Amino acid sequence: MHFLIIGAAGMIGRKFAESLASDAILGGKTVDRLTLADVVSPQEPAGFRGDVSCLTADLSSPGAAEQLISGRPDVIYHLAAIVSGEAEADFEKGYRINLDGTRNLFEAIRKAGGEEGWKPRVVYASSNAVYGGDFPDVIPDDYILTPQTSYGTQKAIGELLLADYTRRGIFQGIGLRLPTICVRPGKPNRAASGFFSGIIREPLVGLDAVLPVPDTVRHWMTSPRSAIGFLRHAATLDPAQVGDRPNLTMPALSVTVGEQIEALRRIAGDRVVAHIRREPDPLIARIVNGWARAFDPQRALSLGFTTETRFEDIILAHIEGELGGRIPERHAA
Amino acid sequence: MHFLIIGAAGMIGRKFAESLASDAILGGKTVDRLTLADVVSPQEPAGFRGDVSCLTADLSSPGAAEQLISGRPDVIYHLAAIVSGEAEADFEKGYRINLDGTRNLFEAIRKAGGEEGWKPRVVYASSNAVYGGDFPDVIPDDYILTPQTSYGTQKAIGELLLADYTRRGIFQGIGLRLPTICVRPGKPNRAASGFFSGIIREPLVGLDAVLPVPDTVRHWMTSPRSAIGFLRHAATLDPAQVGDRPNLTMPALSVTVGEQIEALRRIAGDRVVAHIRREPDPLIARIVNGWARAFDPQRALSLGFTTETRFEDIILAHIEGELGGRIPERHAA
Repeated sequence: MHFLIIGAAGMIGRKFAESLASDAILGGKTVDRLTLADVVSPQEPAGFRGDVSCLTADLSSPGAAEQLISGRPDVIYHLAAIVSGEAEADFEKGYRINLDGTRNLFEAIRKAGGEEGWKPRVVYASSNAVYGGDFPDVIPDDYILTPQTSYGTQKAIGELLLADYTRRGIFQGIGLRLPTICVRPGKPNRAASGFFSGIIREPLVGLDAVLPVPDTVRHWMTSPRSAIGFLRHAATLDPAQVGDRPNLTMPALSVTVGEQIEALRRIAGDRVVAHIRREPDPLIARIVNGWARAFDPQRALSLGFTTETRFEDIILAHIEGELGGRIPERHAA
Repeated sequence: MHFLIIGAAGMIGRKFAESLASDAILGGKTVDRLTLADVVSPQEPAGFRGDVSCLTADLSSPGAAEQLISGRPDVIYHLAAIVSGEAEADFEKGYRINLDGTRNLFEAIRKAGGEEGWKPRVVYASSNAVYGGDFPDVIPDDYILTPQTSYGTQKAIGELLLADYTRRGIFQGIGLRLPTICVRPGKPNRAASGFFSGIIREPLVGLDAVLPVPDTVRHWMTSPRSAIGFLRHAATLDPAQVGDRPNLTMPALSVTVGEQIEALRRIAGDRVVAHIRREPDPLIARIVNGWARAFDPQRALSLGFTTETRFEDIILAHIEGELGGRIPERHAA
């Protein structure tokens, strides 16, 4: 099987490519070819026995989509996007990359498939940002999408296109509404959601982290490991089971910041937790207040998608995946 | 006030232009200029005291949107679309007219507004076709849009764009999900929904009409007069009341075919009803079975949109509006 990952230089894309390289059996089939693409050159994952091509391409440029699919991959992961803040700051760029780029990809598949009978699976990374405005505490699968950002709008449009192209038989689409990823590895960034990871990641290595919102703030999150699991599982689903609604809210854990901190205390102790500095930021609190807090993702659960059920397991996944299984701050004690 | 109607040669566009011509006061303001546009030349409505321009233009052509808005209208009605059957038969044409055409209009407004501080109201004709697949007997306002046609997909994307451009302050958007219009005047057409009007319109003038579905089929319909009322009312709404969800399911009447026929009998008698010929058509029955049967349009009702509450009134609106207030078949008796 030939996998194309568009957006392979991002955090999830890179981890997913590494996962396919180290565990190349998926749904009983062997991944023997990887095409990795991004606007910056993706890294070749270590340990892969098959063929790897790395491409630098921008889906919104004429001809780029045609080039990316020229090897007729069996499974295409479309993970590339301008993030929420940038899509809000630059209206034209957001629509060009997130809407036109996605449509270019779908159209390139339509035009190529018509000639050759090629019908790939397309796994599309959507986002909980498709929800916005007034919603219930726990959002059911059949709740309306009324995004309150341009990014969320572009993702919701991508979902509609994915569903129509799938219904038309052009490709087999699966859309995954990804939760916030926690613990996100790497340096602190300026995303409004960054603190959900920061208050775990930084203290574990002995660094201070700022908490800008009250402990009562509730959010929907899953580990990078579960997110990679979603992407792997999406390649194996039976289209007949997915039915006429190919866009799925992924499962995750609904926890409060206070619950995150208590889980960190149980795993790493008071000295680690003491690195969390409470510095209220009304702007961030207001932004976060507009985000969904919990979902009831019945359809994804019934299709076999799984996530952590305790926040401790999300922290342990981070310690295992990023810190070699040890807590540096504790060992420095 | 200057009104632009795009799609002014269609049944609703023509009736709406006539309504503005004969009753040119809306929300306390005078309609003193009409720009009527369509892909075929629109007719100038009789009796209008202001300025009228009639334009032939296709929104999907480069420069057409800029030309249409060059007079900087205060209110823009975007009623133009390729209909459901054609959008399903011709994938590229449907997306070109219904998606690209809509986006061209919104983009032209964005680019013009940025320079001049112009911020028109945009009333967008959406459709109940945005709903599809599995839905409850009565669909609430917060139910998810999962269209099962390309037309419905294109309308749902238009709604998302309308909401984002409105949220961004580019224009004041109002999206109206129009019900099936009954009694649709004119000749029988080949639309799958045509019989809902045909079984009333044809018998009233002494012609036979085919009923291809069982009497138990339930559907959501309103009169042309109510639809024109929706369009007029949309121009007068306070944006603050509409809030962050500018797309509204319009009210209508949920009736069965059997109830339609009994209302016709009460108004026009057995001899008129006898013109309805039951000829079951499994294909049409299957298509109609996929359509929404009833809504609970709380938001539109609270914003003051109104419709008929008895099917008799829908028939009487037709007799008054199209037949000069008399039933030709009865008078021929």
